[in-house]
Amino acid sequence: MKCRETVEQVVIRPGMSVDQLVRELSRAGAYNGGALARAADLCEEMFRDKGATRFLGLAGAMVPAGMGGLVSDLVEHRYIDVLVSTGANLTHDIIEAIGCRHYHGSSCCSDIELRREEINRIYDVYLPNEAFARFEEFMQESLSSLDPAKSYPITDLLSHLGSRLDSGILAAAVRKGVPVYCPAVADSMIGLQCWLYSQTGRINVDAFADMKSLLGLCFSAERAGALLIGGGVPKNFILQSMLMTPNGFTYAIQLTGDRPDLGGLSGATLEEARSWGKITEQAEAVTVYGDATVTLPVLIAAVRERLET
Amino acid sequence: MKCRETVEQVVIRPGMSVDQLVRELSRAGAYNGGALARAADLCEEMFRDKGATRFLGLAGAMVPAGMGGLVSDLVEHRYIDVLVSTGANLTHDIIEAIGCRHYHGSSCCSDIELRREEINRIYDVYLPNEAFARFEEFMQESLSSLDPAKSYPITDLLSHLGSRLDSGILAAAVRKGVPVYCPAVADSMIGLQCWLYSQTGRINVDAFADMKSLLGLCFSAERAGALLIGGGVPKNFILQSMLMTPNGFTYAIQLTGDRPDLGGLSGATLEEARSWGKITEQAEAVTVYGDATVTLPVLIAAVRERLET
Amino acid sequence: MKCRETVEQVVIRPGMSVDQLVRELSRAGAYNGGALARAADLCEEMFRDKGATRFLGLAGAMVPAGMGGLVSDLVEHRYIDVLVSTGANLTHDIIEAIGCRHYHGSSCCSDIELRREEINRIYDVYLPNEAFARFEEFMQESLSSLDPAKSYPITDLLSHLGSRLDSGILAAAVRKGVPVYCPAVADSMIGLQCWLYSQTGRINVDAFADMKSLLGLCFSAERAGALLIGGGVPKNFILQSMLMTPNGFTYAIQLTGDRPDLGGLSGATLEEARSWGKITEQAEAVTVYGDATVTLPVLIAAVRERLET
Amino acid sequence: MKCRETVEQVVIRPGMSVDQLVRELSRAGAYNGGALARAADLCEEMFRDKGATRFLGLAGAMVPAGMGGLVSDLVEHRYIDVLVSTGANLTHDIIEAIGCRHYHGSSCCSDIELRREEINRIYDVYLPNEAFARFEEFMQESLSSLDPAKSYPITDLLSHLGSRLDSGILAAAVRKGVPVYCPAVADSMIGLQCWLYSQTGRINVDAFADMKSLLGLCFSAERAGALLIGGGVPKNFILQSMLMTPNGFTYAIQLTGDRPDLGGLSGATLEEARSWGKITEQAEAVTVYGDATVTLPVLIAAVRERLET
Repeated sequence: MKCRETVEQVVIRPGMSVDQLVRELSRAGAYNGGALARAADLCEEMFRDKGATRFLGLAGAMVPAGMGGLVSDLVEHRYIDVLVSTGANLTHDIIEAIGCRHYHGSSCCSDIELRREEINRIYDVYLPNEAFARFEEFMQESLSSLDPAKSYPITDLLSHLGSRLDSGILAAAVRKGVPVYCPAVADSMIGLQCWLYSQTGRINVDAFADMKSLLGLCFSAERAGALLIGGGVPKNFILQSMLMTPNGFTYAIQLTGDRPDLGGLSGATLEEARSWGKITEQAEAVTVYGDATVTLPVLIAAVRERLET
Repeated sequence: MKCRETVEQVVIRPGMSVDQLVRELSRAGAYNGGALARAADLCEEMFRDKGATRFLGLAGAMVPAGMGGLVSDLVEHRYIDVLVSTGANLTHDIIEAIGCRHYHGSSCCSDIELRREEINRIYDVYLPNEAFARFEEFMQESLSSLDPAKSYPITDLLSHLGSRLDSGILAAAVRKGVPVYCPAVADSMIGLQCWLYSQTGRINVDAFADMKSLLGLCFSAERAGALLIGGGVPKNFILQSMLMTPNGFTYAIQLTGDRPDLGGLSGATLEEARSWGKITEQAEAVTVYGDATVTLPVLIAAVRERLET
Repeated sequence: MKCRETVEQVVIRPGMSVDQLVRELSRAGAYNGGALARAADLCEEMFRDKGATRFLGLAGAMVPAGMGGLVSDLVEHRYIDVLVSTGANLTHDIIEAIGCRHYHGSSCCSDIELRREEINRIYDVYLPNEAFARFEEFMQESLSSLDPAKSYPITDLLSHLGSRLDSGILAAAVRKGVPVYCPAVADSMIGLQCWLYSQTGRINVDAFADMKSLLGLCFSAERAGALLIGGGVPKNFILQSMLMTPNGFTYAIQLTGDRPDLGGLSGATLEEARSWGKITEQAEAVTVYGDATVTLPVLIAAVRERLET
Repeated sequence: MKCRETVEQVVIRPGMSVDQLVRELSRAGAYNGGALARAADLCEEMFRDKGATRFLGLAGAMVPAGMGGLVSDLVEHRYIDVLVSTGANLTHDIIEAIGCRHYHGSSCCSDIELRREEINRIYDVYLPNEAFARFEEFMQESLSSLDPAKSYPITDLLSHLGSRLDSGILAAAVRKGVPVYCPAVADSMIGLQCWLYSQTGRINVDAFADMKSLLGLCFSAERAGALLIGGGVPKNFILQSMLMTPNGFTYAIQLTGDRPDLGGLSGATLEEARSWGKITEQAEAVTVYGDATVTLPVLIAAVRERLET
């Protein structure tokens, strides 16, 4: 019988907690609201499962949008065990950690005017150029304390940077022993700084060295789970990491604004990932379509309410 | 100076209320999360403004997704003064009000199989055909008590239906004296039932009669506000209603999953509406892109928390 | 065996015709390019099938974007038998037919400035207010020649307007005897003009009268096909028209920029329509996601090349 | 005067060439159809400009969708001077070049069944697992002929692979001396094969070594142009490459299915890139939203018709 569980009309109770609202969405159960509620159930289960290795994929410009604090708290509380990020998120994390700030701006503006005022725009967020000047100082000094004779995996380069910071994602990851992978680090301001450093100094970062430790983690994981914020390199890198093992992810949650019919991996359904064996046949998997600056805070507030209150 | 207000990293406090979360999004202030927070500020202001005539536009299949209860509560609390809806939402509202139910289903299924089991699908919501049989009974009986000699505006037809119901949006609207407009009522099961009735009986509904009362409301409104859920006919009908008056909307909030670059009105920015004079030059206007089954409950929970606790 | 037909890499031959390109997309066969090629095959079959009643659904602001000529040519060549449109497309069709013009504009502009210069914006198309002044003249004069004692179905009102025009969609429809339905006509400038007229004159348009002729067409159709440009009222009105008959559509092509996961009908898959019986179990159905200002001209150029050269 | 150039209604002439259709879209000039026509003008100008260094960014799963042939032809004709790709596109390019094939499949299927039949799915494209077995053979053998004592930039690794192939993008690039950059190569099957090789052999690929040659190209470029297919790493890597130079791109064309309001770089407007100085103040820049399997072939067919007939 296909018609069993009824859709319940959502009831708003003024003052209700985030999880109480998510539970209403669960009773309604439809479209992306319903998916978000199922994602909360799955994320709760994954965060409770201490035997599982939990991966977080972080794509999109999440740190400039204020989602970095939420991520570093997840690291701090050890809800996640491995972080895979774009270089951009780590760049902006460093920028905030060294005391520079992003600003509320507008997406309707003259970019030529911004250019002249030395302000860089990320949709409706502004970042003054001077942040990059201070970022350059931090990076050049940090890179100068690396051993020029040594070949570093990217993850070691990142933990070197994190160890020199007090706040933010990289700092939390170092404190908590959470490895941070960033396979496309060259494709970011961090990469440009490394190039700049190499004009006068010597730096040797191995593009593939990380895969050893990552695949080690994958082989040894009893169970594995993935919380994927956006698509891009982090999503693919996390999912492909299981391809070389006999395992697959047993939990998978994806918050994405992309769409599947364009064929790209960022919008691909998690069902598709099953055909590749990246996700196990039995795995629970939920995709929530929408802007992660809305869905991620709701998801995490609901799950942490369940786990910590 | 363009860079004044800093982006604050979102802090999740387990057990926080929905409005506390929205206030965090306000401090972050970016992308659709930031827009949602601005929408809450604007909606609060609009709901507090007793001198304003508040319009709600309801498109998309919101009732089958459990958003009907939220809307009827807004009517019940008189946060809105005029409702403009698609025929589909009102059809599903009647279906629930006469005791039939929608069910949690799956978007990955065999629609041919569903067809054979007489189940109609709305993305991941199922509705058994028998609901339409009972809907037909209700409609045919309701229509038979109309005066066959009289020409009805659509809004009178709808309040006639609402007066025969105990729960839901139409019933609440009748109870609270909130007029319900549905210019495309022919384009719904309500329309098909009217056609069916006209095969043997007589019914006369005037396509344009509503516009008199609607434009009357627009002319007399001191100020006007619009909360637009989805686009479609409700959005356009609400916005165009001001075109014949010297006024324009002074508050406008739009929750939409469409995009502007396709040129259609559903995804059009509210800025565009300014060029037409639908929205005043000074009006505050916010668009939140995303699925309204996520953004609407968060918005309303936050605003009602501010107003009622 | 699931793997039979190979993906062929697309080969561009400079000077190739549109259909030659579409046939390359057919050999590639993937994503929306592949869907567009399948849509061309299906549309060709539908246009060749003289025993089928062919419906065209026209939503989105297609006429201001120059797609009106393409549609009136389809009517002129009698590739379509029934047109269902939004009121906006017909309004802009009249505006062009009475000699007013739309202009290339920009989506990045000051809408307040446009307002002050009396220019209305539709994404990157501009329409000066004076067009509406001339539209008002045309409408008021046209409405004054209606019989005030008579109740008109909307389709008769529209053919009355079309009969007073020389070019465009409405004029072609009258010339070729193609009925034009517009259930939400009140939700357009045409509706506002009817309201204006009713302030001094008398006009009686029956909201449901059209359904008789439409359902007559549906009952008598041997086979039926639908080419749906955008979603909205036209899509739903066309698809629901079959619900009262024992038939369903046997051809269905949808060009849409919406997405299915929001639950709205505009983005709903045609598979979903099967569960309702709007489309037959055996029907071929293709959805192409994307902007119809790209996909529609390519589709029609390819199909007409097959049929007319 | 803002209203000068009129929107012309598109006229379809059966048998018309692709460029003739694009010129019709140019006369219409609206939405993404108009943008595509402007992109063709700009791309034509860029391809004609022999003094410009032309970059192609290739993201999304374009090769499995049959777009690889079109790209290798662009390389072959030397319309592009530098290619930046995802690892996935190069993996699938190699797979086709060694004689394996992709197949037309369906996006509505059982992924668990596919898994059991050892078929990997990319939306509606199928790829049997055996292709990866042959890919592994090719990769392991190719890697074994690298000098284990040497540190390779990624671009050298890729030209080493391309030199062992007869057809496809990598082979064409080697033949024509077009450097191929792939900063996230670790995030692909190529990366996994390198890891596999490193289990027994020795391979040393420097993550940042490419930047020297890339930035050299950027510094020496008289003018630079970018054709960006999809977003992701290729888009960012191309655009950021100019950040270290006093120059910026003078031509920029972007075909993307993403949207700007999510804040991610993939959907970001090219206007935003101006604020960063990635694109010059005077640069012409066009974004076409939509599926590149539709927009890319139309664009390239139109431009090559202009240049080669």
